[in-house]
Amino acid sequence: MFIDKGDIVSVPFNIACGRCRACRERNTGVCLNVNDKQPGGAYGYVDMGGWVGGQAQYVLVPYADFNLLKFPDKDQAMEKITDLTMLSDILPTGFHGAKSAGVGVGSIVYIAGAGPVGMAAAASSYILGAAVVIVGDKIPERLAHARKMGYETINIGEHDNLAEQIEQITGVPEVDAAVDAVGFEASGHGHPDEAAPAAVLNALMDITFVAGGVGIPGLYVVADPGAPNEDSKHGVLKIRFGKGWSKSLHFHTGQAPVLQYNRQLMQAILHDRLPIAKIVNATVISLDEAPAGYKEFDGGAAKKFVLDPNGMVGKAAA
Amino acid sequence: MFIDKGDIVSVPFNIACGRCRACRERNTGVCLNVNDKQPGGAYGYVDMGGWVGGQAQYVLVPYADFNLLKFPDKDQAMEKITDLTMLSDILPTGFHGAKSAGVGVGSIVYIAGAGPVGMAAAASSYILGAAVVIVGDKIPERLAHARKMGYETINIGEHDNLAEQIEQITGVPEVDAAVDAVGFEASGHGHPDEAAPAAVLNALMDITFVAGGVGIPGLYVVADPGAPNEDSKHGVLKIRFGKGWSKSLHFHTGQAPVLQYNRQLMQAILHDRLPIAKIVNATVISLDEAPAGYKEFDGGAAKKFVLDPNGMVGKAAA
Amino acid sequence: MFIDKGDIVSVPFNIACGRCRACRERNTGVCLNVNDKQPGGAYGYVDMGGWVGGQAQYVLVPYADFNLLKFPDKDQAMEKITDLTMLSDILPTGFHGAKSAGVGVGSIVYIAGAGPVGMAAAASSYILGAAVVIVGDKIPERLAHARKMGYETINIGEHDNLAEQIEQITGVPEVDAAVDAVGFEASGHGHPDEAAPAAVLNALMDITFVAGGVGIPGLYVVADPGAPNEDSKHGVLKIRFGKGWSKSLHFHTGQAPVLQYNRQLMQAILHDRLPIAKIVNATVISLDEAPAGYKEFDGGAAKKFVLDPNGMVGKAAA
Amino acid sequence: MFIDKGDIVSVPFNIACGRCRACRERNTGVCLNVNDKQPGGAYGYVDMGGWVGGQAQYVLVPYADFNLLKFPDKDQAMEKITDLTMLSDILPTGFHGAKSAGVGVGSIVYIAGAGPVGMAAAASSYILGAAVVIVGDKIPERLAHARKMGYETINIGEHDNLAEQIEQITGVPEVDAAVDAVGFEASGHGHPDEAAPAAVLNALMDITFVAGGVGIPGLYVVADPGAPNEDSKHGVLKIRFGKGWSKSLHFHTGQAPVLQYNRQLMQAILHDRLPIAKIVNATVISLDEAPAGYKEFDGGAAKKFVLDPNGMVGKAAA
Repeated sequence: MFIDKGDIVSVPFNIACGRCRACRERNTGVCLNVNDKQPGGAYGYVDMGGWVGGQAQYVLVPYADFNLLKFPDKDQAMEKITDLTMLSDILPTGFHGAKSAGVGVGSIVYIAGAGPVGMAAAASSYILGAAVVIVGDKIPERLAHARKMGYETINIGEHDNLAEQIEQITGVPEVDAAVDAVGFEASGHGHPDEAAPAAVLNALMDITFVAGGVGIPGLYVVADPGAPNEDSKHGVLKIRFGKGWSKSLHFHTGQAPVLQYNRQLMQAILHDRLPIAKIVNATVISLDEAPAGYKEFDGGAAKKFVLDPNGMVGKAAA
Repeated sequence: MFIDKGDIVSVPFNIACGRCRACRERNTGVCLNVNDKQPGGAYGYVDMGGWVGGQAQYVLVPYADFNLLKFPDKDQAMEKITDLTMLSDILPTGFHGAKSAGVGVGSIVYIAGAGPVGMAAAASSYILGAAVVIVGDKIPERLAHARKMGYETINIGEHDNLAEQIEQITGVPEVDAAVDAVGFEASGHGHPDEAAPAAVLNALMDITFVAGGVGIPGLYVVADPGAPNEDSKHGVLKIRFGKGWSKSLHFHTGQAPVLQYNRQLMQAILHDRLPIAKIVNATVISLDEAPAGYKEFDGGAAKKFVLDPNGMVGKAAA
Repeated sequence: MFIDKGDIVSVPFNIACGRCRACRERNTGVCLNVNDKQPGGAYGYVDMGGWVGGQAQYVLVPYADFNLLKFPDKDQAMEKITDLTMLSDILPTGFHGAKSAGVGVGSIVYIAGAGPVGMAAAASSYILGAAVVIVGDKIPERLAHARKMGYETINIGEHDNLAEQIEQITGVPEVDAAVDAVGFEASGHGHPDEAAPAAVLNALMDITFVAGGVGIPGLYVVADPGAPNEDSKHGVLKIRFGKGWSKSLHFHTGQAPVLQYNRQLMQAILHDRLPIAKIVNATVISLDEAPAGYKEFDGGAAKKFVLDPNGMVGKAAA
Repeated sequence: MFIDKGDIVSVPFNIACGRCRACRERNTGVCLNVNDKQPGGAYGYVDMGGWVGGQAQYVLVPYADFNLLKFPDKDQAMEKITDLTMLSDILPTGFHGAKSAGVGVGSIVYIAGAGPVGMAAAASSYILGAAVVIVGDKIPERLAHARKMGYETINIGEHDNLAEQIEQITGVPEVDAAVDAVGFEASGHGHPDEAAPAAVLNALMDITFVAGGVGIPGLYVVADPGAPNEDSKHGVLKIRFGKGWSKSLHFHTGQAPVLQYNRQLMQAILHDRLPIAKIVNATVISLDEAPAGYKEFDGGAAKKFVLDPNGMVGKAAA
């Protein structure tokens, strides 16, 4: 009745039962029934319930009638299959960051990180009506791609005063909303530094206008056993909280609840308003090419690699 | 301190005191202190407080420090002066209709009326992220302009089944949100008909998806002494309310509270995201040309005439 | 996993699939999959999908894992079983009216109708923080009960100026929010009158403060074949819409989506904050006594009859 | 027009101009025009704009027509003058904490701190409809008073497992919303501890249900020159942010924007729904008694001292 064999669908990365209190309240990212260890389940990810798959040729989808988003027309879907693939994860994740930060019509937005989630947050900010979208990163290739897509950019490796850089772009040293699309691995790039895991959050508090919002889709972990110091091992960050408090900011964290957003984002894609594949520079590869793709991505490529185990994109193009 | 001589500003059509309960709650369209007869004041309009001006060379602005929106940069403002003029009235009015109807990312929207407010509602829906914007009207010239601006159109004079027309465009006979940019004068066009004043509202209830919203910036009057029948004289409409109730719709009425929206819309204009002058086909005329402009507009021209008593637009272009 | 044999649960009057777009968006009152004729299903009600039951000894609950609300503790539930029964229908219905009207801390609220839904709207307004709750009705017995429960009352059969009556109570002739707990059968009481079906809505527009909300849980039907005139037969009401528009009011219609509210209301009941059985004067009867109960209720009794086919209340009391 | 000599009014602790962007958006706690150093002004407080007064016999109120809340009736106001005094500061502050945390009908709420702001947050949670309000503190006298007012309590000095204590009260180890009514001075009580400034925030992340909110009206400073370590000197806290992120929590900080709330709270007081003076144990003293009052308060008294320089309370009682 809900899904038929042969339907083309989007599978959210969250696994959700559809019946628990969290799911009934649309918080499918923290479903109470799909993970023995903590709320929230996902495919092929550590501590997320032990569900296999995610980046695989076939996947078992629990509660499929609740979780799947069916595309209304197969032919139309095949034409935009690479864009629609982004509905599983990075597009709702970026959108969650922008939406929860309060991005709306006329907003000036800063997004930390020009990787795929950052670019999805930029695209989301744009379709939410932002007047100016500024993306910050250290990787020149990513910044060049962001500029090509129409966003303003700041190379945070070359400048140490973010507010000043923002002022040069907009005339004002603050933004209305900010998105952290980096997370705790801030220190992974450049010089490892004990203070680094909170670097992005502290910078965003500096540059966000009073009473503004900070959306934080970037991952912060509960524990990181291999971290270089005790604080990081326990997920403790040194945050300049007093700064944020004095500005009356609000902060929104966590995995995106994909089902809150994916239908609307699908409509935007199908009707040519959100060319997300182009914006994240989607590059389709086979499963065999995945290791090489991961390696290139870790090296900072301005690409989002899309695994196409069944050659669907090829079929669509043919 | 707030406004200096020589500043270029936008004057909202609402007059608001900034201190009463309504103003403190941002409902500046129904200020309690500027009109002895009823809440809400405006320039040069019947029953709106007796304030002169609105379409004049000079205007006295009460509570100017509260009401005026100052443009951040004079040169930048002069470059977009025709667009920025729309911030006084039709742009926030159209935006209010779209926003209160619940238009958001991915929405399919129907807008009744392709006049300036309808086109402003269309432009507002677009920047709010709508996937498809459909405009309905009876005047071919207006529909042609709407299509040129990128919106879908329906000639409601040629078709009597609106849902069917919508289905031909989107594949589904319903829209997510609807805007009434016509108001009680629906009967003014075409065949006068006793039932006509409610025609738009009844049509919108038919085509709006369950739990959807209807934004109603189009004017409905408390009384219309010259109306052809008793109901219309007392502002009474024959509404198929049971239809709307069965679909759990919500309805939002009234003058737009301009100050809730104009700063953000200004930002969108200044940063090239909302070419509203082009979308409403703004045509700048002098005060002397106003009577001819009104006449042409009443004849159904697809134009928004902009009075420029001081020749500012000319200066800007020079 | 979700429900076990022997659990004590609340069954919402809405039947909802939990998987369609409406359900995913929490609009379970207009589920798209449980009724061939129109959105929304219910037990034992005309045109609501043909589902039997509702007021029966046993009931088949479709999509039970999604629809049922399980009480956390059986013994605790049995102690408040009459209160908890109200979670199926009238309590969420009254709450929906109050909530959608915008009732909040400090609100002055008027509720049209002192029947069970009106009293549930009054109780809901109170727990939402209302400063003053005023209930209007024509039946002295119901008004007396409302006063006993702590609400202000107005006998609308004795006074024709509602605003004046409200001013006598609060010092101001308007309320912040209004709830229509009567619906189209307004004409059923007192003198049948062609204009009557819109009488409540028109009265509420008069007395609601600018920019305020009107919640309309009272039923308005799409069609009423037995109605005394053509308008009523087609669900058409003569509404003074211009009045509402001039005050920038908003209107919210439709069946309550019970699952949006019942868990929170259950918590309020279980923790002694919402003595709803007492407030609606719940009177427990057996199935055999139902016809007599209906007759007494139709006569205007200030009682909510609760059918207890399996003698649970008796067991709880024992 | 707005205020006359002899009116009885409430003066919000925030000083706000009523015309800047922040004020127009109702964020009067961070007004842009009343403090040269940073957004936001207040009376008699360091770095808040240099405005004298606050706890004085007379006070100059800038932008008085915007800032003052006039009580509708003098006699009625005098009867509740001690309650109404709380509208200047602690009641809206506690309410802001509860409201921004998402407290609503049926919520289970934990409030850290049983001082006046904590008790105001408890009272606010109750009128917002909370099912259970739990207050935690170390001072037995304050906890005893909280219990007397009807709240559940936890002595956090006697137990080190907050979740376990909560479970004993409600059957579940988590709450729906949490309020930090303590702030950075957490370490001021008991054993000074380097980690202490973040102790409350870290505890609240542990016990808040997934997707829940944390309201933080408790003060966190930008800098604290006299602090015992480098982190505290710069307002840096060691926060277990990964924990909060894994639960998708949201956090709301800053001074309460009093004007967003005080009118509604006034209505609740005037209509006998919010006996805030009793709940905070208001104790009226003269200006001369202020030093002794402060001393007693610092010692942990379960009292809110109210300065009455002009003997108004005395007059009211006479």
